Amino acid sequence: MAYDRLMIGTGATPVRPPIAGLDGLGPADGVHVLHTMGDTFALLRSIEQRKARSAVIVGAGYIGLEMSEALTARGLQVTLLEQLDQVMPTIDPELAEPLAEHLVERGVSVHHGTKVRAIAADDGKLGVDTDTDRFHGDIVLVVAGVRPDVQLAADAGAALGVRGAIAVDRRMRTTLPDVYAAGDCVHTYHRLLDADVYLPLGSTAHKQGRVAGINAVGGDAVFAGSLGTQAVKVFDLVAAGTGLRDDTARTAGFAPLTVAITADDHKAYYPGATPIRVRVTGDRRSGRLLGAQLLGSHGAEIAKRIDIFATAISYGAAVHDIEHLDLSYTPPLGSPWDAVQIAATAWTRTAHMMMERAADTRRPRAKVT
Amino acid sequence: MAYDRLMIGTGATPVRPPIAGLDGLGPADGVHVLHTMGDTFALLRSIEQRKARSAVIVGAGYIGLEMSEALTARGLQVTLLEQLDQVMPTIDPELAEPLAEHLVERGVSVHHGTKVRAIAADDGKLGVDTDTDRFHGDIVLVVAGVRPDVQLAADAGAALGVRGAIAVDRRMRTTLPDVYAAGDCVHTYHRLLDADVYLPLGSTAHKQGRVAGINAVGGDAVFAGSLGTQAVKVFDLVAAGTGLRDDTARTAGFAPLTVAITADDHKAYYPGATPIRVRVTGDRRSGRLLGAQLLGSHGAEIAKRIDIFATAISYGAAVHDIEHLDLSYTPPLGSPWDAVQIAATAWTRTAHMMMERAADTRRPRAKVT
Repeated sequence: MAYDRLMIGTGATPVRPPIAGLDGLGPADGVHVLHTMGDTFALLRSIEQRKARSAVIVGAGYIGLEMSEALTARGLQVTLLEQLDQVMPTIDPELAEPLAEHLVERGVSVHHGTKVRAIAADDGKLGVDTDTDRFHGDIVLVVAGVRPDVQLAADAGAALGVRGAIAVDRRMRTTLPDVYAAGDCVHTYHRLLDADVYLPLGSTAHKQGRVAGINAVGGDAVFAGSLGTQAVKVFDLVAAGTGLRDDTARTAGFAPLTVAITADDHKAYYPGATPIRVRVTGDRRSGRLLGAQLLGSHGAEIAKRIDIFATAISYGAAVHDIEHLDLSYTPPLGSPWDAVQIAATAWTRTAHMMMERAADTRRPRAKVT
Repeated sequence: MAYDRLMIGTGATPVRPPIAGLDGLGPADGVHVLHTMGDTFALLRSIEQRKARSAVIVGAGYIGLEMSEALTARGLQVTLLEQLDQVMPTIDPELAEPLAEHLVERGVSVHHGTKVRAIAADDGKLGVDTDTDRFHGDIVLVVAGVRPDVQLAADAGAALGVRGAIAVDRRMRTTLPDVYAAGDCVHTYHRLLDADVYLPLGSTAHKQGRVAGINAVGGDAVFAGSLGTQAVKVFDLVAAGTGLRDDTARTAGFAPLTVAITADDHKAYYPGATPIRVRVTGDRRSGRLLGAQLLGSHGAEIAKRIDIFATAISYGAAVHDIEHLDLSYTPPLGSPWDAVQIAATAWTRTAHMMMERAADTRRPRAKVT
């Protein structure tokens, strides 16, 4: 087929980590990845045909966490293995820890810092070997992230960018004339870093796709950029984040400070209040808001509370701006100072105290004689 | 007591509307206002002592709506009377109507456009007369708004401002030296109108009080201003609003356009999705975001969704900015284009079509011969 403009939306494919035995195993053996609808149907068939009562999930990112809940809800005993030192490596360990505790409370056997070495059939079950243990499951789910599917674009000569994704500019143009690309197959402009990153997210894919589409039919649209805003529901908890965490912020040249508080989602005198853990990251030098992370109950409006931070960051907010926002308040749903504002106030106070302490150590001291 | 600085926080008092018989009736007769904790205890005693099975509530603002739910939950048959043509006059009729329907579904007898003329004891009950009907209740609650309590400040010679509230500047200084005031007793700087209004809200009172406190002890703080952001839970619905509605915007010199959409709170394939009604108001000339109103289910993150708009307005956002925000997405809690973004897109499209149509009518037309 000939084209005037071509749009590439090949997405991403699941990473198959270097696990001995993995290449020889597939859905027929109860070993699954999750990418297409077909993968999901195959998994459901596997659960049924194998009369599965247990599952081992390799990878504790979003999909691993959501599948832990989903399979537990189906009555399976779930073992969740993660090679990094925490579940959900996109949030700080201080939030990942209570999230892992919640999984354990709900019956999931959680093992982080646990690298899977091999998978093999083992007496009607599947055996998953780490350096120290063998875990068993009727099925195994390998959900260890994705990589961009760039074969078509690369074969056509398109330049590749960050982490091998298709290189695009903010108009979603590839380096090939009249060829656009968007979604999980491309790298993504980050609004705070002013640089490209690989951040495959559905919300980003939609926005990029629209920009590519507008431009492909003769318009002029520019992708505003991602902040990496994310949320995930895991049983009764929701974790969410936006913007930069300490490490990335420091690498990008900021002087990050992260301050944590816990505050109720709504007034305690109204029934059902639950604590929200808030972590706010700002730049100590400029006071600029760099990021935020939240962990709280499903029902505590965590997802849209992170969006308050995401919106503010989009406008280059200072952390102390958050304190002055006229946010909604009604006792069943909030507080006169919302949890996000209490966190911002704590950040400002901490940053101020640190400045004063720093000034104090530079001041000549009277000698005690 | 002498003072260096004085802070006035006298709040507001309930309006007692001009209803014949009201002045001679009080808690002992089952007729109540709601202002202090004492008022609440008196109401509870009244319900118990009168073995109340029915209540008439005069006024369908926030308190009237919340008390309709609270008394229904206690098993009373509630009649809700409002003299204006809709419940919750702070939102557009298009949202007030489904809110009223929800009250009716939950057993509340709702009558708007119904002005109360008289209250009188009537055969062991209380009779509430309007122009056309007599409503009966074991108790009557008069919740018809508040007025600022300015007696102390006025006696001391402080100037009064909008709607008779204590006049303050954005540092919360009254016109009297060293005297500050904050909360429901003062008028409030509106961030979008750049003018003072009377908008007594708990969230505003807290922010103003902090500004007054900082300044009273020698600091220099400025009140950022209110957007009138509000939310209320009524049974299973939450209504919320921020910024300006058409009328106020037009009076303030804007060219407002309000566009309405309905979108699910989260992806329909994940159980429990509910519709959110969104109304977005923007300025047709500048594209500036002026306000938004939401109505949706409790649990649909309505309160913090309105805060996305409130945050954006604080930064002088254009409506189309909202489409580009990197908001969180996870199927149980949102969509790749959040409901607030779908509304912003609809607004931009409508404004664009109106501009094109206007341009079209100005264009000379070919005559059909």
